[in-house]
Amino acid sequence: MKELLAIKSDFNRIDEWAEAFADMDIEICLWDEIDDPSTIDYALVWVPEAGALHRFENLKIIFSIGAGLDHLMGPGVLPPNIPVVRMVEDTLTAGMVEYVLYNVLRFHRFMPEYEKNHRRKSWDAILQIPAEQRTVGILGLGVLGQACARVIADLGFNVVGWSRTEKHLDRITSTFGDEQLDEFLAKSEILVCLLPLTRQTRGIINQRTLSKLPNGAYLINAGRGGHQIEVDILSALESGQLAGAALDVFEVEPLPVHSPLWTHANVTITPHVASMTTPFSSAKHVYENIQRFRRSEPLTHLADMEKGY
Amino acid sequence: MKELLAIKSDFNRIDEWAEAFADMDIEICLWDEIDDPSTIDYALVWVPEAGALHRFENLKIIFSIGAGLDHLMGPGVLPPNIPVVRMVEDTLTAGMVEYVLYNVLRFHRFMPEYEKNHRRKSWDAILQIPAEQRTVGILGLGVLGQACARVIADLGFNVVGWSRTEKHLDRITSTFGDEQLDEFLAKSEILVCLLPLTRQTRGIINQRTLSKLPNGAYLINAGRGGHQIEVDILSALESGQLAGAALDVFEVEPLPVHSPLWTHANVTITPHVASMTTPFSSAKHVYENIQRFRRSEPLTHLADMEKGY
Repeated sequence: MKELLAIKSDFNRIDEWAEAFADMDIEICLWDEIDDPSTIDYALVWVPEAGALHRFENLKIIFSIGAGLDHLMGPGVLPPNIPVVRMVEDTLTAGMVEYVLYNVLRFHRFMPEYEKNHRRKSWDAILQIPAEQRTVGILGLGVLGQACARVIADLGFNVVGWSRTEKHLDRITSTFGDEQLDEFLAKSEILVCLLPLTRQTRGIINQRTLSKLPNGAYLINAGRGGHQIEVDILSALESGQLAGAALDVFEVEPLPVHSPLWTHANVTITPHVASMTTPFSSAKHVYENIQRFRRSEPLTHLADMEKGY
Repeated sequence: MKELLAIKSDFNRIDEWAEAFADMDIEICLWDEIDDPSTIDYALVWVPEAGALHRFENLKIIFSIGAGLDHLMGPGVLPPNIPVVRMVEDTLTAGMVEYVLYNVLRFHRFMPEYEKNHRRKSWDAILQIPAEQRTVGILGLGVLGQACARVIADLGFNVVGWSRTEKHLDRITSTFGDEQLDEFLAKSEILVCLLPLTRQTRGIINQRTLSKLPNGAYLINAGRGGHQIEVDILSALESGQLAGAALDVFEVEPLPVHSPLWTHANVTITPHVASMTTPFSSAKHVYENIQRFRRSEPLTHLADMEKGY
């Protein structure tokens, strides 16, 4: 009998999941169609309910569908002593690079200004600034942060990065720890958040940190809504300290209709779609790790739930 | 006495030009401040009037400020037997890469749809398509086209190119000549025009060529307005054959206020700013060639006015 993988995903199309796992020596079933919880060997999940994973008494590995683990951090969500594997796969990384690069270029080239000019049929030009004269700051130098930093540096921008622990990366000026955060912020004309959401990083985009950016900076948050204090972002936009913000994530999602972010002229909103994994690319990543487990080899991208990533 | 370079530019700030040429063994003067035309040795020009260059009886080289030469093609503009040098420099190329990449990512990631959703406070997600499943077609594989093709291929897109003569480029499927144009168009889900404007390429974006694109394709024109037939673009947008167009150039510039392009929901307009050279970067390029001329070495990026590039 084949081993069984239970899937809980926003992307609830069994046919695509079935096709993705078709050639692999594993059976899949969707969350709502589990007959006997004791038959589940693996779980691939996005925002599982508290207690749900505990039902699987023979569970061997929990796979996160998202790059972040914060959706597994709630009380009673994770059963003890089951390894958790993060989603690290090329499609997810490529999607994030696209989203971040798009928004960096958008701000760098004053595209929101040109859109305003377009609406009033204005032919006014804005002087182009060479990429070498811009500094992009990346909060978080994990797999996604490093991939974005590399591509942005390839285009000629100066790139500074900040992470919890020291990193040495080619062409990226790396800073780390609480002591170097302000120095990093002071350089970041375009600030990109790609941090994991942990106790240390919750609320990191706030009045104090925004005030350390160069005046007229831009913010791109593709991390988590929990990283940002939205009233502080709005104040910084009002004062001009922030010239613009591209937000993919929010304190409450979906973003409530009464949020003033929806209608602020200098805010771009996307509905938490900066990057998504696909059934095909995630199936490959999951199955590789299942095969490692079967061969008693160490798993890749194993989560450290203490650190939170 | 120093040699004299006359400058005719949209960017009419003598102080920046003076600073850019400050360390170089050459004197500069703006177009309106020429005392004695016979003292002019070199001219750096954008859209010179017919006859104006003929006044300089001792002129040695004409430098184009734009990448294209079409602004020098009018009757009576070029004096005979004076070498013309194209503007090929890194800032200009980098700016074009930024503009094209921004618009490719914009269409690839359905950003115009997300902007419409934003305006009606909708949280709807659109399924992300991996770059490997998209083909970007580049019309024109000169310095700018090749630079854009490389960066787009780096992001994982399929890239096809078309040029007048055969090119062999790494990772780019190259087509050439009239016979292969339709084959190229049929693959181009996002079509980017970076051609020089010549007798052969004038009006190349028309009803016939647009009809050869995959249904629902996107158009980015960063070449010249003379490449496009705007009524045909509007028809293709109306029928849905084109899902969107990002236009930086127009048949008449500035784009007349009565043009229906201004108000079409699926058109993005920028005022011929996809890329601009700066005084500093163009001064470097110009002075390098002046030095070559003084040493009797061959000039770089010499124009072939017969071919038109």
